[in-house]
Amino acid sequence: MTTPHLSKTLATFASQLKIGDIPDDVIARTEDLLVDWLGSAIAGKGARPVEIMTQFAESMGGFSVTNPGTAEILIHRTSTSPFLAALANAAASHVAEQDDVHNGSVFHPATVVFPAALATAQTIGASGEDLLVAAVAGYEVGIRVGEFLGRSHYKVFHTTGTAGTLAAAAAVGHLLKLNPTQMLHAFGSAGTQSAGLWEFLRDAADSKQLHTAHAAATGLMSAYLAQSGFTGAEHILEGKQGLAAGMSSDADPSKLIDGLGSRWTLAETSFKYHASCRHTHPAADALLQVMMAHDLKPSDIAKVETLVHQGAIDVLGPVTDPVTVHQSKFSMGTVLALVAHYQFAGLQEFDQHFHDQEICAFRDRVTMTLDPEVDGAYPQRWIGKVQVYLQNGDVLTGRVDEPKGDPGNTLSRAEITDKAMRLAAFSGGATPTEMAVAIERLWNIRKQPKIGLLIS
Amino acid sequence: MTTPHLSKTLATFASQLKIGDIPDDVIARTEDLLVDWLGSAIAGKGARPVEIMTQFAESMGGFSVTNPGTAEILIHRTSTSPFLAALANAAASHVAEQDDVHNGSVFHPATVVFPAALATAQTIGASGEDLLVAAVAGYEVGIRVGEFLGRSHYKVFHTTGTAGTLAAAAAVGHLLKLNPTQMLHAFGSAGTQSAGLWEFLRDAADSKQLHTAHAAATGLMSAYLAQSGFTGAEHILEGKQGLAAGMSSDADPSKLIDGLGSRWTLAETSFKYHASCRHTHPAADALLQVMMAHDLKPSDIAKVETLVHQGAIDVLGPVTDPVTVHQSKFSMGTVLALVAHYQFAGLQEFDQHFHDQEICAFRDRVTMTLDPEVDGAYPQRWIGKVQVYLQNGDVLTGRVDEPKGDPGNTLSRAEITDKAMRLAAFSGGATPTEMAVAIERLWNIRKQPKIGLLIS
Repeated sequence: MTTPHLSKTLATFASQLKIGDIPDDVIARTEDLLVDWLGSAIAGKGARPVEIMTQFAESMGGFSVTNPGTAEILIHRTSTSPFLAALANAAASHVAEQDDVHNGSVFHPATVVFPAALATAQTIGASGEDLLVAAVAGYEVGIRVGEFLGRSHYKVFHTTGTAGTLAAAAAVGHLLKLNPTQMLHAFGSAGTQSAGLWEFLRDAADSKQLHTAHAAATGLMSAYLAQSGFTGAEHILEGKQGLAAGMSSDADPSKLIDGLGSRWTLAETSFKYHASCRHTHPAADALLQVMMAHDLKPSDIAKVETLVHQGAIDVLGPVTDPVTVHQSKFSMGTVLALVAHYQFAGLQEFDQHFHDQEICAFRDRVTMTLDPEVDGAYPQRWIGKVQVYLQNGDVLTGRVDEPKGDPGNTLSRAEITDKAMRLAAFSGGATPTEMAVAIERLWNIRKQPKIGLLIS
Repeated sequence: MTTPHLSKTLATFASQLKIGDIPDDVIARTEDLLVDWLGSAIAGKGARPVEIMTQFAESMGGFSVTNPGTAEILIHRTSTSPFLAALANAAASHVAEQDDVHNGSVFHPATVVFPAALATAQTIGASGEDLLVAAVAGYEVGIRVGEFLGRSHYKVFHTTGTAGTLAAAAAVGHLLKLNPTQMLHAFGSAGTQSAGLWEFLRDAADSKQLHTAHAAATGLMSAYLAQSGFTGAEHILEGKQGLAAGMSSDADPSKLIDGLGSRWTLAETSFKYHASCRHTHPAADALLQVMMAHDLKPSDIAKVETLVHQGAIDVLGPVTDPVTVHQSKFSMGTVLALVAHYQFAGLQEFDQHFHDQEICAFRDRVTMTLDPEVDGAYPQRWIGKVQVYLQNGDVLTGRVDEPKGDPGNTLSRAEITDKAMRLAAFSGGATPTEMAVAIERLWNIRKQPKIGLLIS
């Protein structure tokens, strides 16, 4: 009996996926995620690291107004090659901390899938339907690779950067109509470029946007190379000298094919409500719930103990005194302080208040404690639990089973549109009219025979 | 007492390196390695994976004869941006298996340093001296990073691909005149993109050329980003969630600064004489020595037992029945068979004979046995030892302490020129006149005020 070739099964699924295989509600959710991603991409305009990456991408192509490229750089309205557009747009959509996240894989799919897929779709003149199906392929592959690589991987590696190369390769490979053998080669090329380390966060460095740029661009390259006959390892994920061997100690190969064709992981993806690292959201919502239920003011609170999973401690633990807006989005204390004062930790709240004296004071009274129930349920479920110690001596407990944005507590289309409009307004990356038109175009993308520019 | 910040020391060294710091013989050796690299780069012309990577690089820039780029793609005589030229040229120089290797770090420096450095030098109009000093910076950094990451890293990861990003970043960063702080940021961006897994070799896949392309291009990008203010982790190599944490179990931080300024690791780099994986060279030379000393023909030999280090078994072990020319360069048996029959395992010999019946028959009578003396000396010394079992029952022992090409048994300038000419003739990537002119230009590069095209 031969060993099942799991990455080949996954590659075959990604190659052969058709619109008819996908339930309508999953296609609808893909449209939701696409609109949500556009908001995050536009939100990147003006952010220093994003502007630097974008200028690099533009300077490395030979394109201009008189020599246009085929793919759109969203924050600049310039055009370039798909490789360079993917690089720029993936950086753009991962700075505001508003892009989607899949809980079980601890992976941000949109920010690596859509930049690569959109750039390719615009270049080859794919239809809206092609783009949606390709995106599904990207999500289904990337999420499973993230789950496969497991918790040990996430301790050191940024799963969005590592699994992201596979996700981008699958989406682009689908658009390029790679057959199963070619798709497996694309996986082989992508996986051997998988990279992204958490070390950057201790120093508030810019690498997060580089990770997504790298994943989207190298994933796209892997698919294009495979289309031209470039070969890759056949077991890059599960092989003796592959990703699991090099970068995980608890890899679970069965995850690679878990529920293929029946379990649509894309529909398990969460929207980000607060503009911070998702590890902060469960506790933030639990605190909000307690404060609203008991009509509390921040000054009523002596301290807050958040009861969290180990992943939150790993990622957020090093961030005790954030010095930048972006770094503060990885500070549990800052997020809860903003939520306590403004009922929302959005882009404006971070930008204007993250370092206010009263926010810092509240921040320093927030702790994280490993909680067996929360940790046991993680990463499939991200339970929020807090103990709120009041000045008067009372102790209140807050709990949410699904933070806002999780599939069971999702955003409506009106809320998705509203969020995207707010993001564009925040950065000035598009006028309200431009954004409204672009969003409407995307809500109707299924009918478009050929993808054009998103922002005209 | 604070912990020394070793990667910062290394970055400072790379940033501040000046021509006056470098002994003349090290500069001369840099010129040797540059000429040798040119031969390998030209040798890539016509190789399928190299042509595919090159076409991808060309298609992702908007350049043309009427809209030229600033950096040269050597095998096509086209021009593009430095990012895309580095991608293409680094793929080109790592397919013939004739590019240099540093024994102690098991790292191929030229194929990642020169593509990135040359592309940048041509773009910014650097001098020949600038290019040489930058190359030294690249070698000194990359080799130390390879030694730092150690043997456990090499079991799964292709050190040329991983350490290569740092090497390229250091060389380009030096050309861009990054100050020490910026150089450290460049390291942070490079290290968080380090990638490259050995899994590809089991399947004779094309990834080796992708690894070098990826390393050179992402290393270059990291330096350019740092020049524009993009920040990276400050301890990407040695930090709790950095390269060593993620990809090694025997990392030695002291290697990062070992002998900086007095030990010139560039001068420890070996030229490849045979056109195969360097792990085969010690045994190949030992067999040659025995056969010449005893005037043996292949038919005199019943079997050959090579006495090797673990690294040889790790890399070459999976290659038992090579199906492509490139894969056969990782077959100990094939290499020894060619050496036995032709006294040399060069490009022609591989290309024309790797799958001949008599070569395969000899190949299958070659084994590898772990030898404590050889393994103990590795990787600082690559000792060759063989036991040759003759048909008549005699057993002969062969030994070389330094295979041809090692620093103690190096190639003269005439031999380097001759090798580069042969490589160009093999691929047809340059006419003898073109190659002779290019080589002569490189032997005199120290005097050039501005780097131009290499192949006119």
